[in-house]
Amino acid sequence: MKRLSILGSTGSIGMQALEVVRGHPDTFQVVALAAGRRLDVLVEQVREFRPHLVSVSGPEGAQELKERLRGFPVKICCGEEGLAEVAAYPEAQLSLLAVVGAAGLMPALAAVRAGKDVALATKEALVMAGALLTAEAAARGVKLLPVDSEHSAIFQCLEGGGRAALKRIILTASGGPLRQVPKERLASVTPEEALSHPTWRMGKKITIDSATLMNKGLEVIEARWMFDIDVTRVDVIVHPQSIVHSLIEYADGSVLAQLSPPDMRLPILYALSYPDRLANGFPPLDLLQVGSLTFEAVDRERFPCLEYAYEAVAAGGTAPAALNAANEVAVELFLGREIGFARIPEVIESGLRGHRVRPGESLEDIVAVDREVRARLFHTYRGNAGQAG
Amino acid sequence: MKRLSILGSTGSIGMQALEVVRGHPDTFQVVALAAGRRLDVLVEQVREFRPHLVSVSGPEGAQELKERLRGFPVKICCGEEGLAEVAAYPEAQLSLLAVVGAAGLMPALAAVRAGKDVALATKEALVMAGALLTAEAAARGVKLLPVDSEHSAIFQCLEGGGRAALKRIILTASGGPLRQVPKERLASVTPEEALSHPTWRMGKKITIDSATLMNKGLEVIEARWMFDIDVTRVDVIVHPQSIVHSLIEYADGSVLAQLSPPDMRLPILYALSYPDRLANGFPPLDLLQVGSLTFEAVDRERFPCLEYAYEAVAAGGTAPAALNAANEVAVELFLGREIGFARIPEVIESGLRGHRVRPGESLEDIVAVDREVRARLFHTYRGNAGQAG
Repeated sequence: MKRLSILGSTGSIGMQALEVVRGHPDTFQVVALAAGRRLDVLVEQVREFRPHLVSVSGPEGAQELKERLRGFPVKICCGEEGLAEVAAYPEAQLSLLAVVGAAGLMPALAAVRAGKDVALATKEALVMAGALLTAEAAARGVKLLPVDSEHSAIFQCLEGGGRAALKRIILTASGGPLRQVPKERLASVTPEEALSHPTWRMGKKITIDSATLMNKGLEVIEARWMFDIDVTRVDVIVHPQSIVHSLIEYADGSVLAQLSPPDMRLPILYALSYPDRLANGFPPLDLLQVGSLTFEAVDRERFPCLEYAYEAVAAGGTAPAALNAANEVAVELFLGREIGFARIPEVIESGLRGHRVRPGESLEDIVAVDREVRARLFHTYRGNAGQAG
Repeated sequence: MKRLSILGSTGSIGMQALEVVRGHPDTFQVVALAAGRRLDVLVEQVREFRPHLVSVSGPEGAQELKERLRGFPVKICCGEEGLAEVAAYPEAQLSLLAVVGAAGLMPALAAVRAGKDVALATKEALVMAGALLTAEAAARGVKLLPVDSEHSAIFQCLEGGGRAALKRIILTASGGPLRQVPKERLASVTPEEALSHPTWRMGKKITIDSATLMNKGLEVIEARWMFDIDVTRVDVIVHPQSIVHSLIEYADGSVLAQLSPPDMRLPILYALSYPDRLANGFPPLDLLQVGSLTFEAVDRERFPCLEYAYEAVAAGGTAPAALNAANEVAVELFLGREIGFARIPEVIESGLRGHRVRPGESLEDIVAVDREVRARLFHTYRGNAGQAG
């Protein structure tokens, strides 16, 4: 149970904070409230949340409150002193400061000096006395937690979300070179067309995988293992600009994303330099130049390969190895002009659904499945066991 | 110096990895390379990076390489065994695995079993044998670092960027209710118009601040103190949808962002529950419904208040307190219909530029400045020292 004092409880932020508290009655307890002149609202709040201390703006308000709350076990105070008393209330562990404007400065300092962590909605306190407040907070080991949505965003990005409350991974897909090609034209797509990726320069294999969206399917499986998450919690969304490289959603609904121009040198550098980050000469992200980031659903009818990846994970064991082998055969046949683009999914489906799944606990099992699926598919689609066609 | 082995050095990822190494010669050293059949490229790479071990696909290639690199102090091997030897090379601390397709599985396992951290570009290894690879990596305390841009994005969001390499904060601004109102119409904007915010429901003071963009100026100063960053590294960008709540850019060019529907309950909850994240009933972010996230520059001519914030920080000492007092006076005068919207900047400018800056090291100094600026401005614009007009 975290015990809170809330200053500015009848304002917009204060009311929403009490709504949050109401939604988590086993997590938060309100022990002190301070408000201005909206006594009707404050009386209701005291009745509902039963704080031990309440402050209002002036002595008349305090007198009226005493009458209206007769019999309630609550101490009532007022004015600047009352605000400071609520901010520094000994029972509270954290003070939410949501007083409007300069009036928030003194209670902010009072809370910090009393060693309370401060959830700060009153930005004016930092604007007026940033040096003083941050120095006092640092000296006492007190946290200043941002409530402004912008600063909360920055704070969350700096901290990282961690894995405990991870709810969902959203992989972005450029949609590949054939995103806007109608279904009836897919059959006649040439290797050259499929190899001309709109946003990424990459090797041939992955570019074809990107055209079929099989690449995204492989990435779903990769994410499942790399981040130890159930594939039902890994989604895919099309983002043609390839600026947002993926997103994660947390239990509280907050979403974090990483952005950069599409340049593989950046993730390579990060993997090599991790946990450090190194300055470099790569072009920086210019959001003004980008202008717009768009998102659309995957067309699962035109691009069925993505579904096969989910199917393979659900089947478990050696199924993903069979899927991968089938895909490599299909790409090789397509690049060799032995099958048309529209038949790639057919080869993969045959490789996956024609495979009898085994546990696949050793490298040998997996390698055997890889060979077996390749041999079967080359036999079917080329008439030999894998020699160049 | 981090010692690397790179598998697939003549492919797209491998070549870009070597470009990264070339850019950081004091940080990375290549000790082993493996490639397929592109011997010309590989010979050049060996001459430039001088690895101690090189592997190619077959014995003929190895023989040719030996002839072309006669006299070079490099061990040459080939085939699957050569790949595994490069992956597990004792001198290397990290193996970058960028072999195409299923051929990457065995070297991935060899690297993990040799206790190397693996930068994994070959997703097929995890697709085929995710359970095996992750179990072996966990047993040996080996890190699997993603190279795929999507998984790198996820990894970076989970980890958070930290403060060491923070380069720039980009605060987003909705642009407020008057974003599209032409300059000549600003003078006749009513309090009602200025109070109707397009994306956020908030209190009156902050809504007017949002309409003048002074709110963003105050946030720039808030960020300066909360994140201990020079204001020259705090930028503002207009993002009308209020979905991306702010972004941070790192020294390497990577950008992290936090997104959610515009709902203040989320940052409030995070500040109250930090470091935990609590599930709640808030509507989740639906990027498909949002469709498009747009970004545009701030119009600093129509909205001069933002500049005053930078000016106040540059002036230092009590200047931001004077700015804040002037803004509160201006908002009060505007809401009381005593001045028009277009005169808000004039009041603020007068408060800031008419103030003689002092160090402002104590609360008393700051409070004195706050009172002094208010009295002066009310005297000028209302003809009294602050009583209701």
